[in-house]
Amino acid sequence: MNNVKKTLVIIAHPEVGDSQLQQFLLESSQSLKEVEMHYLIEGQFDIKEEQNRLKRFDRIIFQFPMYWYSAPSILKKWIDEVIDYTFSKTELRNKELGLVVSLGVDEANFASGKSEKFTLSEIFRPFEALANKCQMIFLPIFSISLFSYMTEIDKKRLLIEYQQYLTKKNRDNFKEKENWFVSRGKSISKTYEGTKQEDLEQIMSIIEDNREEIEDLRLLIDEMRSDEP
Amino acid sequence: MNNVKKTLVIIAHPEVGDSQLQQFLLESSQSLKEVEMHYLIEGQFDIKEEQNRLKRFDRIIFQFPMYWYSAPSILKKWIDEVIDYTFSKTELRNKELGLVVSLGVDEANFASGKSEKFTLSEIFRPFEALANKCQMIFLPIFSISLFSYMTEIDKKRLLIEYQQYLTKKNRDNFKEKENWFVSRGKSISKTYEGTKQEDLEQIMSIIEDNREEIEDLRLLIDEMRSDEP
Repeated sequence: MNNVKKTLVIIAHPEVGDSQLQQFLLESSQSLKEVEMHYLIEGQFDIKEEQNRLKRFDRIIFQFPMYWYSAPSILKKWIDEVIDYTFSKTELRNKELGLVVSLGVDEANFASGKSEKFTLSEIFRPFEALANKCQMIFLPIFSISLFSYMTEIDKKRLLIEYQQYLTKKNRDNFKEKENWFVSRGKSISKTYEGTKQEDLEQIMSIIEDNREEIEDLRLLIDEMRSDEP
Repeated sequence: MNNVKKTLVIIAHPEVGDSQLQQFLLESSQSLKEVEMHYLIEGQFDIKEEQNRLKRFDRIIFQFPMYWYSAPSILKKWIDEVIDYTFSKTELRNKELGLVVSLGVDEANFASGKSEKFTLSEIFRPFEALANKCQMIFLPIFSISLFSYMTEIDKKRLLIEYQQYLTKKNRDNFKEKENWFVSRGKSISKTYEGTKQEDLEQIMSIIEDNREEIEDLRLLIDEMRSDEP
């Protein structure tokens, strides 16, 4: 399909232009062709336009500074107006919902017994509940705390993690895991000698053989299906 | 202290006039002299006026229909603008914060493994976190589900529980409940005449007699205990 971008970032921030962090994130995302940024501006929303925009993306990200343990009110206004009952039941299924949240305090304080008392997972339950209701996949929360105190190295790490959050596959599926283990296993086997190395290589080749057999079976099934009347 | 009312109810509802439930709650609260209702209206808030209003009350209640697992956006706008850093640190301490939330679905669905997945306590964590930060006392959430399906008896029970939520001391012990009924019953009995008034007064005096007997028994138990070796 043409014209289908991967990720829509909906930004709710009253002063995006004055925010060092928001400018940093904007620059970080500019090289990512499959990502579109969308700023919410005070005033009336064009509901149909907003809904049509959502339809075009697989991953929706809400990006905002945390104000009083939630998003700025403009995002809630957008949610209440744009995601109506019918839309929520039909158009968002299997899309991903993520949050990029900036914090004015150290994230370490968000825990039972600490000053903020609750974890970020607890605080953002309403968004998880929204995703649940719309049959969306809720991504882990991407939080950024105390940006202005970050070193250059911290910021480079943030840039990469942010880019991954916007574009990386979120499938913890078996094949991804298997790939990871095969390549990891191969590199480990090199560090061993003798029978241990042989054993490890044996295990890796069994996994690879199994995978090839699975692939063959899948192709066969696909062919059989395409032959059906 | 003069001029200090007990409870301020801040109502965030886009169509208060059209809501059967909101009208019912309004009527239920009209006889309560120590309660003030305050509707939030779209537009700019007078921050100083809002802050001064808050100062005059011991108990603050947010009353709203749940929209997408939180309050309508106007309440978030009010919170973000009115509760600034200094105000949150100085003026709200030891006040109580309560929520009166109406639900369009059965509250039984709000549980792990049910359709809504999370409990109301979890969904309204952001308000609990706000109370925590302002050193306020967070009251149990008062939720009302499926009002339009309620029987007359359900509605009468709701009326009493709502009145209690607005005015009763925040201790769910038996004596508080009993006290509340006795003083409420006494004031109601004045509005009746003849046998009805006599009946009501009779009931009140029975409750009071019972309570005295309970007190006596408690004292006796305490004495017996203190005599133990």
